[in-house]
Amino acid sequence: MTEVVVALDVGGTVMKCGLVSRAGELRHAERHPTNAAAGGAAVVDTILGVAAGLADTARAQGLTPVAAGLAVPGVVDEEHGVAVWAANVGFRDVPLRKLVSDRLGLPAALGHDVRAGGVAEARLGAGTGQRHVLFVAIGTGIAAAHVVDGRAFAGAHGAAGEVGHVVVRPGGPQCGCGQRGCLEAVASASALARRYTDLAGVALSAAEVAAAAAGGDPLAVRAWDEVVDALADGLTIAQTLFDPAVIVIGGGLAEAGAQLLEPLGAGLRARLTFQREPALVRAALGDAAGCLGAGLLGGDALEAA
Amino acid sequence: MTEVVVALDVGGTVMKCGLVSRAGELRHAERHPTNAAAGGAAVVDTILGVAAGLADTARAQGLTPVAAGLAVPGVVDEEHGVAVWAANVGFRDVPLRKLVSDRLGLPAALGHDVRAGGVAEARLGAGTGQRHVLFVAIGTGIAAAHVVDGRAFAGAHGAAGEVGHVVVRPGGPQCGCGQRGCLEAVASASALARRYTDLAGVALSAAEVAAAAAGGDPLAVRAWDEVVDALADGLTIAQTLFDPAVIVIGGGLAEAGAQLLEPLGAGLRARLTFQREPALVRAALGDAAGCLGAGLLGGDALEAA
Repeated sequence: MTEVVVALDVGGTVMKCGLVSRAGELRHAERHPTNAAAGGAAVVDTILGVAAGLADTARAQGLTPVAAGLAVPGVVDEEHGVAVWAANVGFRDVPLRKLVSDRLGLPAALGHDVRAGGVAEARLGAGTGQRHVLFVAIGTGIAAAHVVDGRAFAGAHGAAGEVGHVVVRPGGPQCGCGQRGCLEAVASASALARRYTDLAGVALSAAEVAAAAAGGDPLAVRAWDEVVDALADGLTIAQTLFDPAVIVIGGGLAEAGAQLLEPLGAGLRARLTFQREPALVRAALGDAAGCLGAGLLGGDALEAA
Repeated sequence: MTEVVVALDVGGTVMKCGLVSRAGELRHAERHPTNAAAGGAAVVDTILGVAAGLADTARAQGLTPVAAGLAVPGVVDEEHGVAVWAANVGFRDVPLRKLVSDRLGLPAALGHDVRAGGVAEARLGAGTGQRHVLFVAIGTGIAAAHVVDGRAFAGAHGAAGEVGHVVVRPGGPQCGCGQRGCLEAVASASALARRYTDLAGVALSAAEVAAAAAGGDPLAVRAWDEVVDALADGLTIAQTLFDPAVIVIGGGLAEAGAQLLEPLGAGLRARLTFQREPALVRAALGDAAGCLGAGLLGGDALEAA
């Protein structure tokens, strides 16, 4: 009987769920609306129901569910298995690990979504074979996971790796966090779209701005170059503090591929002095990284149990 | 027979050496000039001679030398025990761990000076009892050691924790590393002294500027406040990425005590938004931290042997 981990990556709008083999293969995948508008308690009910359903699905397919893994956004106390705070899904001190473990009768792990994605990229994706990996997700927000020997560092309060809130433009645009000039406020996908609207007076999505920049639209090129410059500043700081061998870029903005990675690599190279240059690569697992990472964390919990 | 580790902290001008008990007590201390002007090979000879002498001293005192630990500056490959590069003592790819181990016939460890100091502060000093400690040494330069569960992270290339080379003043003063506006270029003890000289046209040491600022000299107050502001920016970035429970401030500038820590703590508090505030404390071990840390690393090597 093939052993699988019940894995859920809970996002603000959708839960990416599946059954992950102990070797890290996604044996079954399904998606469910998070329906965050219904409130945190309802989201928890949905999670427990989906997890139980996945365990049933596993058995129906002749697979053996042996553990569960959850990845959630916000501030996550991984050691105690508590979703401390997540505005977009309404969590506040929810002991999710115990709730899922009790419901399924299996060992469970709770992880942070970006750190889970980083663990998956480090063990199964673009960081495979490297001991020191920094995974940076650039989407609506920007966050990083520092992964050494396949384990992500959560910090003392579950808040490590928040590279999106490193100030790279002192006195710059207001960030949602309350600070000014954070990397996220000037270089996230949302910031790219905002900046283009400011410059051109026309609202485009980040992907549309990227396409317009690739096509030579001068204002789109300007907005894109500003974003790349700020990202190079932010990654230089991360390299200086974490010294990874490889930086893996994921999230929506990574869809731009070489259009992003080539100038970003050049910008990073130009800024590093004594620091060693990391390999800069695009994430390999796409939006399955969080679910795969949740599966890996569930497997780790099983081994530790 | 009490077991001790032969411990050497090799600095640019002086080697702080001693015998460290397995419990982390300094049982014997001595200092030797590094005499870096004689070149890297001569420094290595001195290190080997001093280490052998310390082992003899241990035996003469009825102690049993069981391992050796060295802390050196620059880029250090701790995994392979190689001093990769250190301009101020002339090291270039020196396999110091093997040289010392062969000379003494004991297991040995090679560590980075600031990381060794951080390990000592975390296990024996101001970070005792905390799992997540960031040690920041502010002297001629600025560097940090990120210590989790008593172990310091070296990074993929032995260059992690270089918080002195995080850019906090884009386009600011030239740094020795080649970049502009690095924290070290605006907030080290040397930068404080330079800034006062720029403002006042009078050369004072950093300690003299600190004293003048405490006494109300307006230009000294201005230089001091600028340094504290830049340090608060740098520590905020470090907190955002590492999320330690405690930040331990060491190095020459920490001698200022509350004059530094009080405004620095206030500046950090004012900058943090969602991040959790770390305790901010002064280093407890003074300039013995590197030697004690070298002793602890030697003990770790013995346990791993």
